[in-house]
Amino acid sequence: MTVTLSDIQQAAQRIGPYAHRTPVITNASLDQRVGARVILKCENLQKVGAFKFRGACNAVFSLSNEEAARGVCTHSSGNHAQALALAANLRGIPAYIVMPDNAPQVKKDAVAGYGGRITFCAPTLEARESTLERIRLATGATVVHPYNDERVIAGQGTATVELLDSIPDLDAVIAPVGGGGLLSGTSIAAKGLKPGIRVIAAEPEMADDAFRSLREGKIVPSVNPKTIADGLLTSLGKLTFPIIQQNVEQIVTVSEQGIIDAMKFVWERAKIIIEPSAAVAVAVLWEKKIDLNGLKVGVILSGGNVDLNKLPWQT
Amino acid sequence: MTVTLSDIQQAAQRIGPYAHRTPVITNASLDQRVGARVILKCENLQKVGAFKFRGACNAVFSLSNEEAARGVCTHSSGNHAQALALAANLRGIPAYIVMPDNAPQVKKDAVAGYGGRITFCAPTLEARESTLERIRLATGATVVHPYNDERVIAGQGTATVELLDSIPDLDAVIAPVGGGGLLSGTSIAAKGLKPGIRVIAAEPEMADDAFRSLREGKIVPSVNPKTIADGLLTSLGKLTFPIIQQNVEQIVTVSEQGIIDAMKFVWERAKIIIEPSAAVAVAVLWEKKIDLNGLKVGVILSGGNVDLNKLPWQT
Repeated sequence: MTVTLSDIQQAAQRIGPYAHRTPVITNASLDQRVGARVILKCENLQKVGAFKFRGACNAVFSLSNEEAARGVCTHSSGNHAQALALAANLRGIPAYIVMPDNAPQVKKDAVAGYGGRITFCAPTLEARESTLERIRLATGATVVHPYNDERVIAGQGTATVELLDSIPDLDAVIAPVGGGGLLSGTSIAAKGLKPGIRVIAAEPEMADDAFRSLREGKIVPSVNPKTIADGLLTSLGKLTFPIIQQNVEQIVTVSEQGIIDAMKFVWERAKIIIEPSAAVAVAVLWEKKIDLNGLKVGVILSGGNVDLNKLPWQT
Repeated sequence: MTVTLSDIQQAAQRIGPYAHRTPVITNASLDQRVGARVILKCENLQKVGAFKFRGACNAVFSLSNEEAARGVCTHSSGNHAQALALAANLRGIPAYIVMPDNAPQVKKDAVAGYGGRITFCAPTLEARESTLERIRLATGATVVHPYNDERVIAGQGTATVELLDSIPDLDAVIAPVGGGGLLSGTSIAAKGLKPGIRVIAAEPEMADDAFRSLREGKIVPSVNPKTIADGLLTSLGKLTFPIIQQNVEQIVTVSEQGIIDAMKFVWERAKIIIEPSAAVAVAVLWEKKIDLNGLKVGVILSGGNVDLNKLPWQT
């Protein structure tokens, strides 16, 4: 295994001064509806509104002073870009962010708002990768991949260290899976601290490449996924896949309607804003696809970045 | 003074097993926008989604066994009705709730869902009061007023005991004012624990009866208030007015647009759902009507009950 519990514990120390220790909340209505005792770990309340800040922050503060001085870079149009920009800003170093020129204005503004230096490129993977490589060569900046990076995986695992510190007697923990960074970190932390705990992954039916990868024993790429959970469109990486194979008992897929219903219920009853990708983990309980009845189940709410002018339950 | 810090501290002990100790959260974007260091005390994450549960719970668990056996009663169509129904349910006693027959179905369902026994009446204050009196005489139930009740005021103050326990070095605390129960409890707790702290009330310009009451030195009733902050429509009570006169430095009024803008900003950046009445307190900072620059300011977010199908920034 490439990332250990000790790496995650060190990451927790490293990011402690910068990241929020997010609250854990419980909700009697949710428990009653799903038949389990649910503990919500609120990474939607993390800086930049997503767990991504943990991994980016650990990566940035792991660099030597010499490396750090040259900055960090990545290509992303999502939460990772904002997270890396903010983490670099906190260390006082440049973050070079490659974004497709068709990215939503609100995301461009957010990255710029955190001090990221944006380079726009054509909206293809090839253009993003070649642009990033050009910047890396020109600046000497360190590439920080959104999930296929040991420092990032270790950072993402720190949410579960906090969760188990707050609630030691969890029976299971559920995390959503896209590229697998959060799930990898979650699973290493959970199994490391509590070997008997169940680690369950949540994935949309409409983007079930991780489910199929686990079943087929090799990475099955995500092809044209169509899901409201836009944080979970990516395929597993070479680092995350074997960690997930080893630590995760089960990947449970959920329907689009289940994602929306679970999301609205959490907004209505728990009074917190979660994005569809976070609702995917709640939907595992909501749809009762596996028996977790009466168990104490931690759910990693991955983030809360949503367009408030366009909600999925409004047509 | 009719309610003391000691009453509030006893209330905190009494409701401890039943109420959430709600999280306090901070948000760098909000701080930057308003120029203060803001601590949000999340009563929107309290049971029934509002601080009202604290007061109702303290009232219900203050009763002797003999009193309790006869139940509690109130007339309300809002959060207090739900709060009292849940608190009574937790003690295993009946809660008789008088509601106007034109109350929204979702509110009737919520009260019934917590086990409240609803009696409908005509939608006039006279009908509500006479119906309540009839029930009281028939059952011997104890009336629990939503704010003009010492046990309720003491219960509402417990949020501030927790807030100052978490963040002892606050310079000021802001709470919204409607009937004044929350503001009274907040002010007694804050001044009792920290005599130098500033206690600031927040009120909509369009429902500024408390502002005018303080200025005129007598209770000015609220007449046809038209504000989006539907939790702040009531007038001050005989118990709450003198407490507020004694403890509150200033009542700051805010515009409807300020309420909506502050509300949306908190949803977007802090990722929590607050109702317009809670946003009124944030709007004091948002509109910068008073100088709180650089200060550490606690804000009591009173609740999060909002119709998610109809948001104020959507036309």
